[in-house]
Amino acid sequence: MISHWWERKDLKYSEQGELTLGGYSLERRARQSGTPSFYYSAERVRHNLEELDRVLSRHTFKHKIYYAMKANRFMPLMTFMKSTGLCGVDVCSPNEVEHALSCGFRAEEISYTGTSLSDNDLDRILRHDGLVLNCDGLSMIRRVGERAPGREIGLRINPALGTGYGTNELLRYSGTKPSKFGVYASEFPEALALAEKYGLKVVRIHFHTGCGYLNGQLEVWKQILETCREFLKDRDTIRTINLGGGLGRPLTSSDRPLDLEKWGRTIAAVFGTDRYEINVEPGVYPVQDAGVMVLEVNTVERKSGRLFAGVNGGFNLAMEPAHYKLPCEPVPCRLREREEDAFHPDRMGEVTVAGNINEALDLWIEDHPMPELREGDLLAFLNTGAYASAMSSNHCMRGTFAEYLLV
Amino acid sequence: MISHWWERKDLKYSEQGELTLGGYSLERRARQSGTPSFYYSAERVRHNLEELDRVLSRHTFKHKIYYAMKANRFMPLMTFMKSTGLCGVDVCSPNEVEHALSCGFRAEEISYTGTSLSDNDLDRILRHDGLVLNCDGLSMIRRVGERAPGREIGLRINPALGTGYGTNELLRYSGTKPSKFGVYASEFPEALALAEKYGLKVVRIHFHTGCGYLNGQLEVWKQILETCREFLKDRDTIRTINLGGGLGRPLTSSDRPLDLEKWGRTIAAVFGTDRYEINVEPGVYPVQDAGVMVLEVNTVERKSGRLFAGVNGGFNLAMEPAHYKLPCEPVPCRLREREEDAFHPDRMGEVTVAGNINEALDLWIEDHPMPELREGDLLAFLNTGAYASAMSSNHCMRGTFAEYLLV
Repeated sequence: MISHWWERKDLKYSEQGELTLGGYSLERRARQSGTPSFYYSAERVRHNLEELDRVLSRHTFKHKIYYAMKANRFMPLMTFMKSTGLCGVDVCSPNEVEHALSCGFRAEEISYTGTSLSDNDLDRILRHDGLVLNCDGLSMIRRVGERAPGREIGLRINPALGTGYGTNELLRYSGTKPSKFGVYASEFPEALALAEKYGLKVVRIHFHTGCGYLNGQLEVWKQILETCREFLKDRDTIRTINLGGGLGRPLTSSDRPLDLEKWGRTIAAVFGTDRYEINVEPGVYPVQDAGVMVLEVNTVERKSGRLFAGVNGGFNLAMEPAHYKLPCEPVPCRLREREEDAFHPDRMGEVTVAGNINEALDLWIEDHPMPELREGDLLAFLNTGAYASAMSSNHCMRGTFAEYLLV
Repeated sequence: MISHWWERKDLKYSEQGELTLGGYSLERRARQSGTPSFYYSAERVRHNLEELDRVLSRHTFKHKIYYAMKANRFMPLMTFMKSTGLCGVDVCSPNEVEHALSCGFRAEEISYTGTSLSDNDLDRILRHDGLVLNCDGLSMIRRVGERAPGREIGLRINPALGTGYGTNELLRYSGTKPSKFGVYASEFPEALALAEKYGLKVVRIHFHTGCGYLNGQLEVWKQILETCREFLKDRDTIRTINLGGGLGRPLTSSDRPLDLEKWGRTIAAVFGTDRYEINVEPGVYPVQDAGVMVLEVNTVERKSGRLFAGVNGGFNLAMEPAHYKLPCEPVPCRLREREEDAFHPDRMGEVTVAGNINEALDLWIEDHPMPELREGDLLAFLNTGAYASAMSSNHCMRGTFAEYLLV
């Protein structure tokens, strides 16, 4: 047997050459239900949450994990996550609050950190007693104060500029100019005074620290956390620190997985007492590699020398490859020959996998070495558990798909 | 009175300082119906179609205009376009075929030019006798031939490589490598032989010639058309030429509108006989500048020195500014003072208009000179008639909006 960079216990080829996710043959499932379709491995989601929980539990601080539901709001998936008891939900709109409640989460398990909130948004959110609410700026503090004086709030802090770390890469995640997020150091005293004016109790600080961290960036992240710590001096009411951010996942054979233990130790090194409860929002981490999208090859054809495989789904179903050049590698759902033969370098050919949207950017992957493909084959697109179906559009009226939780 | 680059008879400020579209005050309409909302001026759509029709009618060839409904499929808008009698519809999926039929178009008025079609797509499309069908490659020709031998078809030709023009900018619209679209010169003889094998009558050539043309590119476009003409030699069955492509619109004060007369003369110079019927697919041209999106300012706040105006809609409602850096300029729906005062350079300030999605790229425009904005103001985002609502997603569950045809 050969091993693939993405292979793991719940995602691999069976001895019959069928790609299995959580023990299910994707070929059989997708032939039954049709394509385009998304499959999510409950086992993998639980594994990912348990791994985060285990790493954070090694340290003295209390912790909570908030799953950012913007990554994937498929209701069965969210209810499964609730049932693990390992996470709350990070939301950013009133509809997301209602959706999370629909899926079984309690208001106290829902953390709201948004931007550009309307009065109507605030009216809807503030109905829910116990909802964890972080304020994104002065205007929001004022408008929350007018509506709910005395409430407990968090402040979203943007440590990016004016802190001495403005020149490094991660702190410039939104360019060198100030971004729209949070309260900067320059407005922090005014934010605290405004909260006090309305009797709002600032019990939590949410730090906007960028996202997508992999190993090479943990050192920088540590520096950011140290900057964040400055905001806590002499703030005795603050009991909770939300570190925001997201954790990266390998998307190609050359990416290395994040050293989660080191990530946990970095947090402990900066905030490692029992004084604060630490909250994390690990971004795509819990769900991205638990999801696989299956599409059918409908066209195999050489054009001016270049081999194309056209499939029955386009970038409107998963926009990251087209818009952000983040790959979701396609692999065959069923192999025609032994795995070591199918993936033998001499047997593979370069294929450009193209979506069915009438736009040149709608390519899933270009000139990628793959086993021989034929019209009618099914392809599994890996790592499509996050920011795929949740961001899908009906562009060209090609937006129909189904989703399945594999339990 | 001052004049704005975007101002025209059906889009201007009234004497009361209210922005009017097709005679309607957007302030009043949006206060009544709520935001986010899109407004489309029927008068402007008719004007745009009439202008195209008039320019093409000056020449000896017969012509047809196909509106690419992927730009905007709002049903009232499409039915209005049908009622003008000035255009058919360019579609690229079976659902778009059904949608166009729903809106009142007949099968013969619907032109299908797609890519990566599945067998199921073909089965659905071929039910509609009279539908104008263009084949995108060898696989599609074969599969259409198996299902509908003897049918009339068009061939989509990709003149990009191997024609001597491969080095110019427009021909590289999808990079220097072959794109997924159409039949290249290298496969053209095989495509014709395959069509003949199945008794398919090639009565039409569709040329994939890029899109977004403005004046500076008309010379290059003429060269492309001349290349296209080479494909027609000794092809006596071909009666129709579809020139594909799209026509650009000015999106900022520094863009100049396309010289439509020159565009028409370019076509006539290359194909100017009565031998061929000329079809055009003018892209966003009929609808882009007929549409305005209205959002409400909910947050006005300076962050680390930079002034932000947060609004109640994000890039999921109109993705071109965030993803393609194509601007849709925001202007106030109602002015607080005389127009010449509000827009006096000394009175305007630089504002970054930010959407309500929790992502740094969700900015509508950066550091843009605007009249003073206050929380509660309504902003009109110009040129949002195309590739906005039609490509919208429910990302962060912020995808709710309404659309109105102003007649």
